[in-house]
Amino acid sequence: MTTLSNSRTVRIEWGDCDPAGIIFYPRYFEIFDASTAALFERALGLTKFEQLKRFNFAGYPLARTRAKFIRPTRFGDDVTVDTNIKFGRASFEIEHRLSLNGETCVECLETRVWVVRDPATGAIKSQPVPAEVLAKFG
Amino acid sequence: MTTLSNSRTVRIEWGDCDPAGIIFYPRYFEIFDASTAALFERALGLTKFEQLKRFNFAGYPLARTRAKFIRPTRFGDDVTVDTNIKFGRASFEIEHRLSLNGETCVECLETRVWVVRDPATGAIKSQPVPAEVLAKFG
Amino acid sequence: MTTLSNSRTVRIEWGDCDPAGIIFYPRYFEIFDASTAALFERALGLTKFEQLKRFNFAGYPLARTRAKFIRPTRFGDDVTVDTNIKFGRASFEIEHRLSLNGETCVECLETRVWVVRDPATGAIKSQPVPAEVLAKFG
Amino acid sequence: MTTLSNSRTVRIEWGDCDPAGIIFYPRYFEIFDASTAALFERALGLTKFEQLKRFNFAGYPLARTRAKFIRPTRFGDDVTVDTNIKFGRASFEIEHRLSLNGETCVECLETRVWVVRDPATGAIKSQPVPAEVLAKFG
Repeated sequence: MTTLSNSRTVRIEWGDCDPAGIIFYPRYFEIFDASTAALFERALGLTKFEQLKRFNFAGYPLARTRAKFIRPTRFGDDVTVDTNIKFGRASFEIEHRLSLNGETCVECLETRVWVVRDPATGAIKSQPVPAEVLAKFG
Repeated sequence: MTTLSNSRTVRIEWGDCDPAGIIFYPRYFEIFDASTAALFERALGLTKFEQLKRFNFAGYPLARTRAKFIRPTRFGDDVTVDTNIKFGRASFEIEHRLSLNGETCVECLETRVWVVRDPATGAIKSQPVPAEVLAKFG
Repeated sequence: MTTLSNSRTVRIEWGDCDPAGIIFYPRYFEIFDASTAALFERALGLTKFEQLKRFNFAGYPLARTRAKFIRPTRFGDDVTVDTNIKFGRASFEIEHRLSLNGETCVECLETRVWVVRDPATGAIKSQPVPAEVLAKFG
Repeated sequence: MTTLSNSRTVRIEWGDCDPAGIIFYPRYFEIFDASTAALFERALGLTKFEQLKRFNFAGYPLARTRAKFIRPTRFGDDVTVDTNIKFGRASFEIEHRLSLNGETCVECLETRVWVVRDPATGAIKSQPVPAEVLAKFG
């Protein structure tokens, strides 16, 4: 088991919000996906575009996610997203905590898998995270 | 406890998909939110816009959601979304099953609350689903 | 010059709208992109996914677009999108008219190009629309 | 006529891109809308949320937009958006230039109007930008 964490600030925009004036919740998952990418970029020292070429894989799609919405956020809020990763054998778990002024607004737990594209069929299939990648999260 | 269900077909679009060629998962939550709205519209015989005026509330935001991604979908797929609702005392649960050609692709379980806007502060707060609304789901 | 047209109905959803209660305008471009895909699908008898494989190209990205927003639309509106295409030598023009109850809400004019992926570099480059494709719009 | 400008950096994310691996163009309009908000925030010293309360208006929706897509961008790109505003009598024009490493990728010209909500009907209608707001862009 190895772990690493990252933190970033995200501005909630007008266009992220719905007629109730608060964020439309699918936007949180866009934020969390980008936070996962930011964590990998920090660990590997490469953008996701560069990672895909370097490690010859097709991404790390979700197997499961669950989220708890505690306090709403709205346009103009600069929220903090703290992200942690824990690698298992066949998948890995990512935990996101989105907060505003220190108060937790959303908690999210993702299970993701590392996938490669089958050269013959073009289909994607999961495989263990390469040791070379894991080593970067040491 | 009352229940009702709805089913609808949704086309996965090019713009819903990511560089892996499969749907970018936050789009599923946009689909599920619209499926929840479609269920309420069917039960109440009013669009959400009309509902907000008729019942003087501010929406039914999520308290929690969890989803399991079983098979990917991609642009050109016409998926079926089957939605069920179960009302509890202070919240209600919505279950979505997204399938393609009869095979389940995503399962999602949402917990939502009915909210009203406080006229004084403008803040939203939860309250029980009105009996008049519940009766429509009988 | 060949032309063809298509018409489809789109529901404006809660999540498409912003805190002013009207549609957030980038959503119109998502609708227009899907309308362009629907027109090609109708003419070619293939989904975009099938087209990419059949004609070995990488899409038809925009070179230019312009839109005029005449009347706002909001969640619960079932709008009509009428789409027309006109092929030129190196590009093609797509015109979308989005209306509600017969009244025009948005007019949009797109210029798009047909692109293929360079097998050596992976970069995309434009080329004339294949005669085989044009013939289908006859 | 008064003018002001702003510049900001935006990361293009995986989820902003389509199966061709490049940005799905409606995402540019989300970026431009946020860039317009950033310009107003800089000039007025208030977030859009605070502006709506302070100046009692409902937003500045688009009357027209047009964009030219010169070079594609993709996930991992950190693009620069330079935004300029020019106020007219009944509307105002916003120009966005999105560039990567100094090379222009997208040019966009928006015409927007200042709108207020009619307290009686709830409908939005345009009115001149308040002098107090204009003065801040001096």
